[in-house]
Amino acid sequence: MITKHVLILGGGFAGLECAKRLRSETIRVTLVDRWNHHLFQPLLYQVASGALAMTEIAQPLRSILADQKNVTTIMGDVVHIDLPAKQVKLKDRVIGYDFLVIALGAKTSYFGHNEWSQHTLGLKSLDDAMAIRKKVLLAFEKAESTLDSAETEKLLTMVVVGGGPTGVEMAGSLAELSRVVLKEDFRHIDPTQARVYLIEAGPKLLPVFPGGLPDYTRDRLKTMGVTVQLNCPVKEVGEGYVIAGDQRIESEIIIWGAGVEASEVTRTLAGIPLDRGGRIEVRPDLSLPGYPEVFAAGDIAALTDKNGVKVPGVSPAAIQMGAFIAHSIQNERIDGARPAFGYWDKGSMATIGRSAAVVSFAGIQMRGFIAWLMWLFVHLVFLMNMRNRVSVFLHWAWSYFTWQRGARVIQSSRDP
Amino acid sequence: MITKHVLILGGGFAGLECAKRLRSETIRVTLVDRWNHHLFQPLLYQVASGALAMTEIAQPLRSILADQKNVTTIMGDVVHIDLPAKQVKLKDRVIGYDFLVIALGAKTSYFGHNEWSQHTLGLKSLDDAMAIRKKVLLAFEKAESTLDSAETEKLLTMVVVGGGPTGVEMAGSLAELSRVVLKEDFRHIDPTQARVYLIEAGPKLLPVFPGGLPDYTRDRLKTMGVTVQLNCPVKEVGEGYVIAGDQRIESEIIIWGAGVEASEVTRTLAGIPLDRGGRIEVRPDLSLPGYPEVFAAGDIAALTDKNGVKVPGVSPAAIQMGAFIAHSIQNERIDGARPAFGYWDKGSMATIGRSAAVVSFAGIQMRGFIAWLMWLFVHLVFLMNMRNRVSVFLHWAWSYFTWQRGARVIQSSRDP
Repeated sequence: MITKHVLILGGGFAGLECAKRLRSETIRVTLVDRWNHHLFQPLLYQVASGALAMTEIAQPLRSILADQKNVTTIMGDVVHIDLPAKQVKLKDRVIGYDFLVIALGAKTSYFGHNEWSQHTLGLKSLDDAMAIRKKVLLAFEKAESTLDSAETEKLLTMVVVGGGPTGVEMAGSLAELSRVVLKEDFRHIDPTQARVYLIEAGPKLLPVFPGGLPDYTRDRLKTMGVTVQLNCPVKEVGEGYVIAGDQRIESEIIIWGAGVEASEVTRTLAGIPLDRGGRIEVRPDLSLPGYPEVFAAGDIAALTDKNGVKVPGVSPAAIQMGAFIAHSIQNERIDGARPAFGYWDKGSMATIGRSAAVVSFAGIQMRGFIAWLMWLFVHLVFLMNMRNRVSVFLHWAWSYFTWQRGARVIQSSRDP
Repeated sequence: MITKHVLILGGGFAGLECAKRLRSETIRVTLVDRWNHHLFQPLLYQVASGALAMTEIAQPLRSILADQKNVTTIMGDVVHIDLPAKQVKLKDRVIGYDFLVIALGAKTSYFGHNEWSQHTLGLKSLDDAMAIRKKVLLAFEKAESTLDSAETEKLLTMVVVGGGPTGVEMAGSLAELSRVVLKEDFRHIDPTQARVYLIEAGPKLLPVFPGGLPDYTRDRLKTMGVTVQLNCPVKEVGEGYVIAGDQRIESEIIIWGAGVEASEVTRTLAGIPLDRGGRIEVRPDLSLPGYPEVFAAGDIAALTDKNGVKVPGVSPAAIQMGAFIAHSIQNERIDGARPAFGYWDKGSMATIGRSAAVVSFAGIQMRGFIAWLMWLFVHLVFLMNMRNRVSVFLHWAWSYFTWQRGARVIQSSRDP
C-alpha cells in the first residue's frame, strides 16, 4: 500500500480542519504549528479584556488530534518553503512532502509603517491578548497610585484602531470593563472616567454589514461610552501617542485592529503570484500555479471563487477551504481534474457589548438582544469540540448576572 | 470621630483575612501587595502541571474587597520599613500608619546557595507556576522533535527537590501528566518513559505526618512511577544537572520545593530579632518587641504559641493570625493589655495523586480514596469565597472522568 505524506503548515481553522478530514489509511499527515495549541481567534478579544481565561479559547493541537494516529504534530517555526525540491525548512529540520497545505494565516499589518508595531498592541495570538490585558489592568493600578491628573488622564485613555469586528468588539469590551466591571474597585480614581477611542479611517464601522447595522453599531458604542471617530485615518504613532485625523491622543494603550497581511513566509515562494497583502493567489482548486501538489487555505490564500465571490478572511471560509483540500487529496483522480472551490457565505456577526450584537445572514439583518443571543449560540456551537464550551458558558452566565470578570489577574508585576 | 489607619503589607492569607475583619467605621485600611491578586497557594502545583488555569486559583484583591469601602488596595513593592518613624517606603511613595501588619510571606530558600536559584524553578507565585508548566510542556515538544536519544532522555527527566507537601504533590502531578494525560499525544516519544525524581534530604517524605502515612506516600508515589530518593541531600545544582547524594542527574527541569525563608524585607527591620529563616520573632500577641503598634502574621512570623506549639507555616495558621490581629486592633484596650495568640491545629493533608491523599487530624490518620475525597472537599470549601470554586469543581470532575487536563497551553513559543 502506497502511503502519501501530507504536510500541513499551520494549526488554525484551515489547517486543523484539513488534518481532521484526512482520515484515509493511505495518508500520513504531519501538522506543523509554531504554537502548541489551536486558538479560537474570534474570542481572543475576550481574553484581552479579562472576560475569559486563555485556556478557555485554546486547546493543545496534540490533544485534539490524539486519537487520529495517522497525524504527527510538530511544534516549530517555518523558515522557508522550497517548492521545486518539495521540502519545507523548519528552524531545526527539513521535512519533505507529497502534498503540502500552506495555512499559516495572517499577521497584523501596519500598511507600510512597521515602526508603529513597537508602540501598539496587536491582537492575533494569546501572547498579544495577555499583553493587552496586563497593560490595561496595570494602567488602572498606576492611575490609582498617581497624584498627577494629566498622568491619570493619559493612563485611563485607550485607543482602538480599526472599525472592523475586532475593533468594535475590543472597544465595546474595554468600555464595559471600565464603566461597569471595575466601577467599585478603586478609591482614588473613577474608572468610569476612562476614555475608549475607536478610530476608523473609513466613513463607517463594520463596512461589510448591510443597511442600518453600521449606524446602529456606532450609536450603541457611543451609548456605552466609546468615543467613535470615523473618517479619521491614523497619520502617526509614537511612544505614548497617536495622531488620527487632526487630533493627537495621549495614550499608552493603542490596540491595532486595522488590518492583516499574510504571514511573511509567502515572500519566500519563488515565482508564486501574491496580492498586495502578501496572500497567495491560488487557482480555483486552491492549488498553487504550477504546483498541483501544493495548496493554500485560510487567511493566507487570495481567491475569487467559482461564483465570483471574493473569499473573505473569516473562520468559516478557512474551515471550508481546509475541508475542500482534504477532499481533493483523498479523491485525487488519475486525470488530475479537480473541482473548483465555492465559498458558502454563512453570514457575518459581531458583538458590541452585553445584550447587543449585529447579525447579517442571507439578506436578513438583526440587531440587539436577539442578535446577541444568536451570537452566543453560534460561538458556543463552534466551541463544541472543545471541552471548554461548558466552562465558557458558565463563565459567561456568571458574568452576565454579576457583571464580574474572572480573568482579571496580572500574571507578572514587572512592567512590560 | 478619630480614624485609625491600619497599613497591611501583603494580600496573602494573613493580610487578606486581617483586612476583611477590619470593618469598624473608625478604621481606615490600606492593603499593599506586589501582585494584583490573592493567590490560593495550596493549589499552585496544579497550575504548574496544567491541571488548572491560573485564573482559577487567583482573584484580584480589588474585587474581593470592592464592597469594603474602608479598604484601599495598592499594587506596589515594599522597599523599606522604618519602625521608629512609623513609615513604609514603597518604590514610588511613602505611607505612614497608626498600626502596621507585616504579612509579606515567604520566598524559596536555597539554604545559602542562592546561585542555585538560576538553575531551578521555584513554586511560590503564578509566574513560577507558569514557568514550570511551559518548561515541562516544551520539554515534551522538544523531545518529540529530537533524534538524539541521550537528549531525549535528559528532556524527559524531571527532578523535584523536597519531600514536603509541595514536593509530593508536584511529583505526583508530573507523574500523572506524563504517564496518563500525555500518553496518547505523541508519535515519536513515549511520554510514559519520562522519569520523575523526588529527592529528599531526610529519611522520610511528609515528615510532619504521623504513623504510616510517610511510608504510604512513598509507596504510592513509586507505584505511580516516581523515583523517590530519601536520605539524599542536594550537593550541587548547575546548568542542566543536579548532584544529590552520590548521584548526578541530567535534567533541565529542577523544581525546588525544599524550603522557604521570610521575605527579605525583614532584614531592614533594625533591632528586631529574627530566626534563622529571617522570620520575625514576634511577642505572644503577635506584635514586634518594642513596637506594640506593629504586628507580623503568616509565614513571616516565628512564634511558639501560648500552648507551647510552634506555629507552622501553613494557610490555616496565617488566617488565624490575621483574624487575631484584626481583633486586637479593633478591641484595643486603654491599659494596652492583649491576649496571647493560640494556634488551632486543623490537621494536615496532602494529595499524592488521583484518588490518593493523606490526612492527619486530631490523632486520626487517613489515607487513600476517602482521604482524597476529604482533601477535595476541604479545598473546595476554602475556595468558597471565590467564584472559581464552581469552575475548579467542574474542571476536576471533567479531569477525573476523562484523564485530560485543560490548561496545557504554552502561552509563548519563545524559549524561556
